[in-house]
Amino acid sequence: MHQRLHLITLGVRDFEKSKKFYEETLGWKPASASSDDVAFFQARGVVFAIFPREKLAEDALTSAKGSGFSGFTLAYNTKSETEVDKIIADLKSKGVKIMKEPQKVFWGGYSSYFADPDGFLWEVAYNPYFSFDQSGNLLPT
Amino acid sequence: MHQRLHLITLGVRDFEKSKKFYEETLGWKPASASSDDVAFFQARGVVFAIFPREKLAEDALTSAKGSGFSGFTLAYNTKSETEVDKIIADLKSKGVKIMKEPQKVFWGGYSSYFADPDGFLWEVAYNPYFSFDQSGNLLPT
Repeated sequence: MHQRLHLITLGVRDFEKSKKFYEETLGWKPASASSDDVAFFQARGVVFAIFPREKLAEDALTSAKGSGFSGFTLAYNTKSETEVDKIIADLKSKGVKIMKEPQKVFWGGYSSYFADPDGFLWEVAYNPYFSFDQSGNLLPT
Repeated sequence: MHQRLHLITLGVRDFEKSKKFYEETLGWKPASASSDDVAFFQARGVVFAIFPREKLAEDALTSAKGSGFSGFTLAYNTKSETEVDKIIADLKSKGVKIMKEPQKVFWGGYSSYFADPDGFLWEVAYNPYFSFDQSGNLLPT
């Protein structure tokens, strides 16, 4: 198994609402393979997808029951602190729930969090110790 | 906000156990930026990380409480059904919990699921409708 992650799928409680959030609020374009109950967003190196929660659990032969912290976060990294501020200000103006206002954090970066319609957490951060390669991939070195 | 996802972090209950799982069972190499309580794995287009669950929740200013289905899945896509079988057989021989044995699924592909030490779900699948670009990125079109 190569060191590789191809796709991440969020199991969402209201598919239409989530689709609208990612398409209209974040401004992302779904790939043509999307259908009535699944939306794929090509996010360069990885594919991000949303799918009804019950169906996702069923696909993995597990129960859809669950509550509280989902135990993971997604992150969007910027090239400056200003970019973090701009993104969060824009999302806030669109009514998105900001969990953590942009601020200096203990690890030396500048970070903020917003929540998607299901409460899945997205960090928007500037990490001065990380860089990007020519394709815009984050390099944690 | 570009259509981009840079990093995904799993909040894990036993950091050492999870680190061992991703490093030894899956055979992934942590990036040099890793430290005592965070491990970054460069997975080409996206960075995959593990971090103690309590600290991750604290970073997002939320409660770490939560149980049941975490509401998302990660996927590793292969280029053939045989590759799915091989990966699952290898993981099974290493004692990894297989949630779904490799099988033909309703959407036309061949899929299986395993669980990491926290129960986070990884799908290993062959999707005959998707392709890969020259960098090995999945193309959902």
